[in-house]
Amino acid sequence: MAAAQNSGDAETHQAAKRLKTDETEAGNNGEKFISNFEVGRVLRDSTREKTIFVHGKIDDQEAIVILEKTPITEDVLPEMLKTSTQTLEMRNDIYSTYKLRPPPHLSGVKTTVICPATEKHVKKYLRQETFLIEETEQDYQSITLPYINSQSFSVQWVYNILEKKAEADRIVFEDPDPQDGFVLLPDFKWDQKQVDDLYLIAIVHRRDLKSLRDLTADQLPLLRNIREKGLEAIMKRYSVPASKLRVMLHYQPSYYHLHVHFISLDYDAPGCGVERAHLLADVIQNLQHQSVYYRKHTLTFPARADDTLLGKFREAGRL
Amino acid sequence: MAAAQNSGDAETHQAAKRLKTDETEAGNNGEKFISNFEVGRVLRDSTREKTIFVHGKIDDQEAIVILEKTPITEDVLPEMLKTSTQTLEMRNDIYSTYKLRPPPHLSGVKTTVICPATEKHVKKYLRQETFLIEETEQDYQSITLPYINSQSFSVQWVYNILEKKAEADRIVFEDPDPQDGFVLLPDFKWDQKQVDDLYLIAIVHRRDLKSLRDLTADQLPLLRNIREKGLEAIMKRYSVPASKLRVMLHYQPSYYHLHVHFISLDYDAPGCGVERAHLLADVIQNLQHQSVYYRKHTLTFPARADDTLLGKFREAGRL
Repeated sequence: MAAAQNSGDAETHQAAKRLKTDETEAGNNGEKFISNFEVGRVLRDSTREKTIFVHGKIDDQEAIVILEKTPITEDVLPEMLKTSTQTLEMRNDIYSTYKLRPPPHLSGVKTTVICPATEKHVKKYLRQETFLIEETEQDYQSITLPYINSQSFSVQWVYNILEKKAEADRIVFEDPDPQDGFVLLPDFKWDQKQVDDLYLIAIVHRRDLKSLRDLTADQLPLLRNIREKGLEAIMKRYSVPASKLRVMLHYQPSYYHLHVHFISLDYDAPGCGVERAHLLADVIQNLQHQSVYYRKHTLTFPARADDTLLGKFREAGRL
Repeated sequence: MAAAQNSGDAETHQAAKRLKTDETEAGNNGEKFISNFEVGRVLRDSTREKTIFVHGKIDDQEAIVILEKTPITEDVLPEMLKTSTQTLEMRNDIYSTYKLRPPPHLSGVKTTVICPATEKHVKKYLRQETFLIEETEQDYQSITLPYINSQSFSVQWVYNILEKKAEADRIVFEDPDPQDGFVLLPDFKWDQKQVDDLYLIAIVHRRDLKSLRDLTADQLPLLRNIREKGLEAIMKRYSVPASKLRVMLHYQPSYYHLHVHFISLDYDAPGCGVERAHLLADVIQNLQHQSVYYRKHTLTFPARADDTLLGKFREAGRL
C-alpha cells in the first residue's frame, strides 16, 4: 500500500459511512465511479500475473486503476468447465488447447482504484529498473533518515485503521496494548477467498517505530508478541500453521510505520525476495544477540531508478 | 510443453487438417470433450499466475486439464471498465476496491487438455506442498548432519567441473588457489542469450565445506574473494554491475559442496525467496561480528512434503 494522502475528519467519516452502505447501493456507486475512468497510459502490466496498472482520470481527478484477474479455484472448476463457451484452438496428438469463456459470475477481476492519485502513486506503479543499494549505518543517518523526515510521508490511512475510522470490519485480531499491541488485517492484495495466497499485515499501535532500522532489543517483547499472537490468530481463523507462513518485514518498507507481513508460503508474492525481506524469526534472533544489530549493520535493499532515495545515494556518490 | 508422445506422419497430417476446421465445428467438438471432464484432484495451482492443473478423466481415459486466465490487455480496457458489473468491496481514504465481472467475450481462459495422460504427466505437474523448518544448532547435529552423511550425495559432477573433466569450455572465470579459489560458470537455467536472466554459479575448490552451516570467520578470505573476483569477472564479461546482482547462498543447498549464486536482480528466479536465500554480503557481515553465527543460529528453510529431510524432522517431533 502506498503512502496515502492526508484526509480530513469529514472525509474519513464519509469513508466510514460508505463502508456501511449495502452492496446494491455500493455497486451502483462503484459502477458510476469506474465507468467514468478515462484510460490514460499503462504504467505496468504482467502477462504472467494477469495484472495491469493504468493511469487516467475520473471526473477530472488523477486516478490509478489496478486490475488483477482472480485465481481459478477448485470449487468453481466443475461449473466453469460445464458452463463456459468453448473454442478449440489446436489439436496435436494427445494435446489440445481451447479458449474457454466463463459466464460473468465465474470471472472476477479484482480492481483497486486510487483517486485522487499523486505523482508519487504514479511513480510507485510505473515500471522502472531496479538496483541494489548497500546502506551503511552512516548512509542511514546522512542520507536515508533526512530523506524520510523531509518527505513527511502521510500514514493517515494507517492511523485510520488503528483508530477504527476505516476498515474496522476487516480486523482479524487486535491486541490493544499501546506498547506491544497491534492490529492484524488482510492486505488489499488478498481477496480472502482461498488461503493459498493468504496475506495479512500486523500494524503496531506504537507510532514511534519507522522501520527495521529503529529496532533494538527493547522491542523484543513487541516482536515476540506479534509473532506469537499473529500466528495464533491466523491458525484460529484460517487453520494455517506457522510452518506454512513467511512472517517478515520489508526494508525499505513502503510506509514508515512498523508493520509485519504474514504471507502464505505457497504464495510467491512480490517483496519476498532475499533483497528486501527479513524473516521476523531472524530479526528476533539477531536482536537477542546484538541489541544494535539493525542500527549498525549494512542493510541491502532494492530501489527503482526513479526512486528519490536512489537519487540521494547517487548524489552522495554511494552508487 | 511436456515430452510429447511420438506421432506418426499420418497422425500429424490429421492434426494439421483439424487445425483447418472451422470454429463452429471445433467449438462443438471442444464443448463435448471438456464438458465430459470429471474433476479428480488438483495437481498444482498458482494464485499469482492464475493457473490450475487438474487430473481427472474424460470418457474413462486419464486426462490432465490445465487452465490459465488470459492476461488483461490495453486494447480491451475501456470496454471492460464500461461493460462489467461492479461491486464495491472496500473504501478507505483515497483507496477503494471493487470486484468487476466482465462479460464472457472479455474473460478468456486458456485451456490445455492432455488425454490420454500417463503417470509421468501426472508427476510432472504434481506440486508437493512446502513447509518451513526451523533448524536449531542441535537439530543440525542430530538430524540434518547424520542425514547428509547417510545419503552420501554424489558430487562427482562438481569434481568433474573442478578437474576440467566436464564443462571446461563453459568456465567464465577461475581462481585456481586451492584454499580461496573457485570456478565461475553459467547455471544450466541460463541460456546466455540475454543478461536479464543472468545466472552463474561460483563453486569453491575446497572440498571440506558442505554449506552455510560450516562457515566461520576462518572462511572470510574465501568469501570475500568470491564476491570480489566473481563480481569483477561478471562486469568484465557481461557488463553487469554489482548493483544489478543478487549474490547469495541457499540453505539448504541442492548439493553439499559450497557454492554461491550470482543472479540478475531483474530475474525473479526460484530460490531467491527470503526463506531459502542468504545474501553473501550479509553472511560476510555476520561472520565478521560473530565467527560462529551460522553454527549457532537457528536457520529457517523450506522443504517439500516428499523430502526425506522433512520426514526426519517429523520423526524427531520437530515439525
